[in-house]
Amino acid sequence: MNTNSKLYNDKLSLLTDLYQLTMAYGYWKNGLYDRPAVFNLFFRKNPFKGHYSIAAGLQLAIDYLQNLKFDKEDIQYLGQQKGADGKTLFDESFLNYLQRMTFSCDVDAIPEGTVVFPNEPLLRIKGPLLQAQLIETALLNMVNFSTLIATKASRIVTVAQGDQVLEFGLRRSHGVDGGLMASRAAYIGGCDATSNLLAGKYYQVPVRGTHAHSWVMAFEDEKKSFESYAEFLPNNCIFLVDTYDTRTGVLNAIEVGKALRKKGHDLLGIRLDSGDLEALSKEARYLLDQAGFSKTKIVASNDLDEYRIAELKANGAKIDIWGVGTRLSTAYDQPALGGVYKLSALENKAGKWDYKVKLSEQAIKTSNPGIQQVRRRYLGHRILGDIIYDQNLLKAKQLEAPELEKGFDREEDLLVPVFKKGQLVYDSPNIHDIRRRTLEQLEQISQKKYPVVLEAQLENKKLEFIGNLVK
Amino acid sequence: MNTNSKLYNDKLSLLTDLYQLTMAYGYWKNGLYDRPAVFNLFFRKNPFKGHYSIAAGLQLAIDYLQNLKFDKEDIQYLGQQKGADGKTLFDESFLNYLQRMTFSCDVDAIPEGTVVFPNEPLLRIKGPLLQAQLIETALLNMVNFSTLIATKASRIVTVAQGDQVLEFGLRRSHGVDGGLMASRAAYIGGCDATSNLLAGKYYQVPVRGTHAHSWVMAFEDEKKSFESYAEFLPNNCIFLVDTYDTRTGVLNAIEVGKALRKKGHDLLGIRLDSGDLEALSKEARYLLDQAGFSKTKIVASNDLDEYRIAELKANGAKIDIWGVGTRLSTAYDQPALGGVYKLSALENKAGKWDYKVKLSEQAIKTSNPGIQQVRRRYLGHRILGDIIYDQNLLKAKQLEAPELEKGFDREEDLLVPVFKKGQLVYDSPNIHDIRRRTLEQLEQISQKKYPVVLEAQLENKKLEFIGNLVK
Repeated sequence: MNTNSKLYNDKLSLLTDLYQLTMAYGYWKNGLYDRPAVFNLFFRKNPFKGHYSIAAGLQLAIDYLQNLKFDKEDIQYLGQQKGADGKTLFDESFLNYLQRMTFSCDVDAIPEGTVVFPNEPLLRIKGPLLQAQLIETALLNMVNFSTLIATKASRIVTVAQGDQVLEFGLRRSHGVDGGLMASRAAYIGGCDATSNLLAGKYYQVPVRGTHAHSWVMAFEDEKKSFESYAEFLPNNCIFLVDTYDTRTGVLNAIEVGKALRKKGHDLLGIRLDSGDLEALSKEARYLLDQAGFSKTKIVASNDLDEYRIAELKANGAKIDIWGVGTRLSTAYDQPALGGVYKLSALENKAGKWDYKVKLSEQAIKTSNPGIQQVRRRYLGHRILGDIIYDQNLLKAKQLEAPELEKGFDREEDLLVPVFKKGQLVYDSPNIHDIRRRTLEQLEQISQKKYPVVLEAQLENKKLEFIGNLVK
Repeated sequence: MNTNSKLYNDKLSLLTDLYQLTMAYGYWKNGLYDRPAVFNLFFRKNPFKGHYSIAAGLQLAIDYLQNLKFDKEDIQYLGQQKGADGKTLFDESFLNYLQRMTFSCDVDAIPEGTVVFPNEPLLRIKGPLLQAQLIETALLNMVNFSTLIATKASRIVTVAQGDQVLEFGLRRSHGVDGGLMASRAAYIGGCDATSNLLAGKYYQVPVRGTHAHSWVMAFEDEKKSFESYAEFLPNNCIFLVDTYDTRTGVLNAIEVGKALRKKGHDLLGIRLDSGDLEALSKEARYLLDQAGFSKTKIVASNDLDEYRIAELKANGAKIDIWGVGTRLSTAYDQPALGGVYKLSALENKAGKWDYKVKLSEQAIKTSNPGIQQVRRRYLGHRILGDIIYDQNLLKAKQLEAPELEKGFDREEDLLVPVFKKGQLVYDSPNIHDIRRRTLEQLEQISQKKYPVVLEAQLENKKLEFIGNLVK
């Protein structure tokens, strides 16, 4: 499945920071360029003060990597980059190399829709140093944002307790792709549909929509506007009732609903988009029920997020479907996931792995070395915790992790092969299966913090390495 | 100038909400589709608790509108959309119409890089109701986000007081285009350059970059890494000094700087990316000065924004260049501008304009009717305030606006023609001129709230209309 290359993936090779290219140039010149290296993409903290995240963005990364190729225009543009003295940064031999370079890394990744925790590699890239470095920025861009939004959506879907959640955020999203990726990730996180037609076309997300205030304003009065809509779109009638006055709007919708029934259709819903959603929904429900429209749904929108939805539900609001826009699509309360991409091993001249750590005064920012894999342990249906271990250090199947609760009855490694030497070996699930995976995974966790531990040998290796660096 | 169509603009016709298409269908069926209508795109509140915004995104909107065309795939996709009864929403006559539809609206807009205030139409669309409605979502998407980021950048540039500001945010941006548009808008807002190569290629934003921590980690020790960089990129040496220990890092940079000088180059800068930037910059400045590197710049990065930069400057931090990432590119403290797009007039059967208002319980959310223009008054160099007036209501050149300070000596209308009957009539400035406009405009404002008033006849018309609606 090559989901979005038609949109622009064949033109993203320059979607990176200039410093990736200057480093690539340095590696090309000093001979380190094809030295095998391992990088891990991970985040250090769950977003939204939560206790889990939902991995997303892998398919976008796959599409990008499959199309990674510098074309003539790219090379020409790079050839124009200049240093402080006005001379070009890159020489011809490097530009020629770039133009013929083909992606040849191994990529292992945690599948989209998986519950993940801090410090776990969501992607692990192993391959020539130059290539593995070059792709950092684009991978972070795609995985950071997708994971952020899938996580946000999953939180909203969780508090909605089975009610439908529709994503409406395109008009406030961060550009074309801020909207597209958000719609995709929101669906992966458990939303039922989007308003965004382009996300429907490119990513197969189900699409929904009825009408805006301007439809009502285009007519002499509200009732005429509903009647006209019902005449031509009788199978899509969810009337927005707050253009002028919500109570009158509901009564107009009911009148038109009666006419719809005579023609074999029904009033599917009404939508509230302003005011006191709790009070208005209760009044609307009463009016609809009294008029025999007890199956007509009440849709609500207007700055909703998981906190507001939880509050409305706790207060008994009569809302059946939640339209969530800005606060989901921009992850309003935390609009960035701080994912990073760190070198964890580099082959030395002798052909052995040197382990690498980025130190920091803040212990949380000190990265883990090695060729990491994540083993998840379960007891029955529930996740017990995860162990980050080194695939090369440890040949034994049984991992020692005394901090983890005993008594697991099942375990699995989360990272699966995606590319081998640049060849795609992963059978991508479709987006509906990814979404189902999310919903199943959400049932395997509870409201607690999950232990993620470093396996003992890797922990020792890390401490030893830090000791050497700081002595 | 057609800046980004090569990337994807010819494929954005479905970048809209489904409800725009269901409304379009309704208008097609009920005969309102070609009725002349006027829509205004405006926001209600300046972002970041500020007192102004910087208009941006127009060029992206122009590129989108010039390429607005539903192709066969789009039509096929729309043909598959179904209602509640499983029957298709749209009939063939409508789909045929869409496929042959060409954009024929008038568009007037406030040029990018202009200081703007709440309730002023940034874009005014006048044309067939169906078309003017259809483009709402994409226009909002592009203008909302671009204006948000240009405004954020201008705030950062203002507190930087002439220091260079570099935008580094791609890895945390909202997808491909969340990064691209952010880099473009940040430059328009006054930043000096971006790290984002694709933004350089497509939007002519200057690009900068040197190296990351991973470069240092790829070598046996930090000094060797600086030496190798200096050997191959001697005209681009800004060394990142905090991979292991900042003080040692600065000393290593100085050593390599001495060698650089012997070869006719210089140590351009060092970069601090963690820790106490105030203390570290002072120490680094002292060490550099002592060693004779007083022209070597100190670059700082790590969660910077206008508040943090102001604080660091107030405390005498010795920082020359500011690298700003996540907090700029995602507008972290307010990641969405709430711009809206409202119908303000619709021609009636008699060929006269009916004025339209969207009512709301919140007065601030009640929209302005009419065919609006914005007149700005100046006294010398300074903006006094703006008057929103109706071009059709008011033929007189002299506007009455008693609330506005008297004594202006110059005035101009801000909205300029961009499209006439679908034909581009606007000579787009290049991005460097747009940026210069921003910087000039920032000098015309001060730290106060600017008056934006409705011209008296338009105000009366609005009150009369509201009176009729609620009676």
